[in-house]
Amino acid sequence: MGVLVVGSVALDSVKTPFGEVRDALGGSATFFSVAAAYFTDVAMVAVVGSDFPAEHIEMLRSRGIDTSGLVTEEGETFRWEGVYGFDLNDRETIDTRLNVFETFRPEIPGRLAASEFVFLANIDPELQLAVLDQVSRPRLVACDTMDFWIEGKREALDKLMRRVDIMVMNDAECRMLAGEPNLVKAARMVLDMGPKSIVVKKGEHGALLADRDCFFSAPAFPCEDVFDPTGAGDSFAGGFMGYLAKTKDVSTDNIRRAVIYGTVMASFCVEEFSVGGMTSLDQADIEGRFRMLRELSFFEAG
Amino acid sequence: MGVLVVGSVALDSVKTPFGEVRDALGGSATFFSVAAAYFTDVAMVAVVGSDFPAEHIEMLRSRGIDTSGLVTEEGETFRWEGVYGFDLNDRETIDTRLNVFETFRPEIPGRLAASEFVFLANIDPELQLAVLDQVSRPRLVACDTMDFWIEGKREALDKLMRRVDIMVMNDAECRMLAGEPNLVKAARMVLDMGPKSIVVKKGEHGALLADRDCFFSAPAFPCEDVFDPTGAGDSFAGGFMGYLAKTKDVSTDNIRRAVIYGTVMASFCVEEFSVGGMTSLDQADIEGRFRMLRELSFFEAG
Repeated sequence: MGVLVVGSVALDSVKTPFGEVRDALGGSATFFSVAAAYFTDVAMVAVVGSDFPAEHIEMLRSRGIDTSGLVTEEGETFRWEGVYGFDLNDRETIDTRLNVFETFRPEIPGRLAASEFVFLANIDPELQLAVLDQVSRPRLVACDTMDFWIEGKREALDKLMRRVDIMVMNDAECRMLAGEPNLVKAARMVLDMGPKSIVVKKGEHGALLADRDCFFSAPAFPCEDVFDPTGAGDSFAGGFMGYLAKTKDVSTDNIRRAVIYGTVMASFCVEEFSVGGMTSLDQADIEGRFRMLRELSFFEAG
Repeated sequence: MGVLVVGSVALDSVKTPFGEVRDALGGSATFFSVAAAYFTDVAMVAVVGSDFPAEHIEMLRSRGIDTSGLVTEEGETFRWEGVYGFDLNDRETIDTRLNVFETFRPEIPGRLAASEFVFLANIDPELQLAVLDQVSRPRLVACDTMDFWIEGKREALDKLMRRVDIMVMNDAECRMLAGEPNLVKAARMVLDMGPKSIVVKKGEHGALLADRDCFFSAPAFPCEDVFDPTGAGDSFAGGFMGYLAKTKDVSTDNIRRAVIYGTVMASFCVEEFSVGGMTSLDQADIEGRFRMLRELSFFEAG
């Protein structure tokens, strides 16, 4: 078994300066799984409503994704609607309807409880904790969170951080969690809260990996055609965890490479709506961008 | 002769969350020269008023900086007053008094007209052009600019860009100059305006070097104690040009290294008020941070 992800499956309506789409396949578990499936076996635990198009489930299955933990409940699927401004950096949420996601209580099928690599996508930290109670000694657990939980569920989040190996978050969340504007200081403060490592996603500025001993600064892929940033963070997490699960190597050097594979998958994600940028890649596409990132950041002593 | 810089010498009053200082030595030519002098011979062309403390000129000379082009005019020295907010990212200018700088018309002493490396710090692009008319075939010319000139002196700036080798600017200026929010696209558009290379400074996010053939993404130095960001960009330029002038090698690989030395000098600059963070370094300090930046950004294929 490769990697288990627990998160959301949604239908997204997105408007960017370049176009718009209605009820497109989205959600953290979706982006994560499609990205991770290029590297390893993936199983998702999530919930959809009875209105969820069967074609999406077929698409996920056709990519080898284990959907046995994807539950269908009576009612409507989680829907999110958002608009991105001119520079794609800030987005406005127009509407969020949790629908069946509101009462989601993830249940990990017995077969998946032995998953060695587990990613807790951005859901209520109490539910993330409940997932950890259902899995048996995973080799590595990573999790994501957001401002909403940092503000509203801090106690559960603090408890969670002491039980995960790697926190994956964006720079604003890192600063918020630490209450410290200097990102380097903030990262160290988050490490003191429990996780062995943290990965701070900085969008067009790349990513920062921090652990007790050192920092790693990963370049962003120089995307000229950012079409829709939705799902970039979850695709990053999918590439990151997928590569770790594939290689079963959690050394610092390998975690650095995993950050680069995360960056690569996010760079493909943002080039089209929904998961469109990630559905027809081959290994050469992925390795090509990995090499480009190496060339982009390489320098030698004189 | 190493590098010639034309720019400002000022007395800065700065307030940050960590302290404040009045009439401290500042100005683009000052920060540039102090940084560059660790690498090569530096000559500055600038103007000060009759109130300018002699001790500052002595300090510059004691560092081997050629101040023969530093003119003293009757009147007051350029003064700038600013306040930085909590996260040090945005600053508010409280007062700018150009004083003798208002009528500054740089004259390059004959001995310096043969300078091989020339840096045109941020002044009116018409004056930057006038400097280029006074130097004879430099090996490499780099220049800085700012939003004020992009808006108000675009024609002169366009002319200038066709005559310089490297534009050094920050990310907001690059986007503004190109009228394009995507930084990668914007950088390519600025290259089309004339310069062979551009260096985009992104503060805590590092720097981007772009030329016709490739991009280089340089990490930021992970500064935990940013005390006062004033002068960071000019110190970057000083390290960058100083290293190029020292090595007399303008290959892409060496320009990449120069960006890293620029990053190193900026990282020292921000640790104290004025040039205080750069006055008592030795080569080992500088090389130490260069190596740290290499370790910080290094990864290998798996």
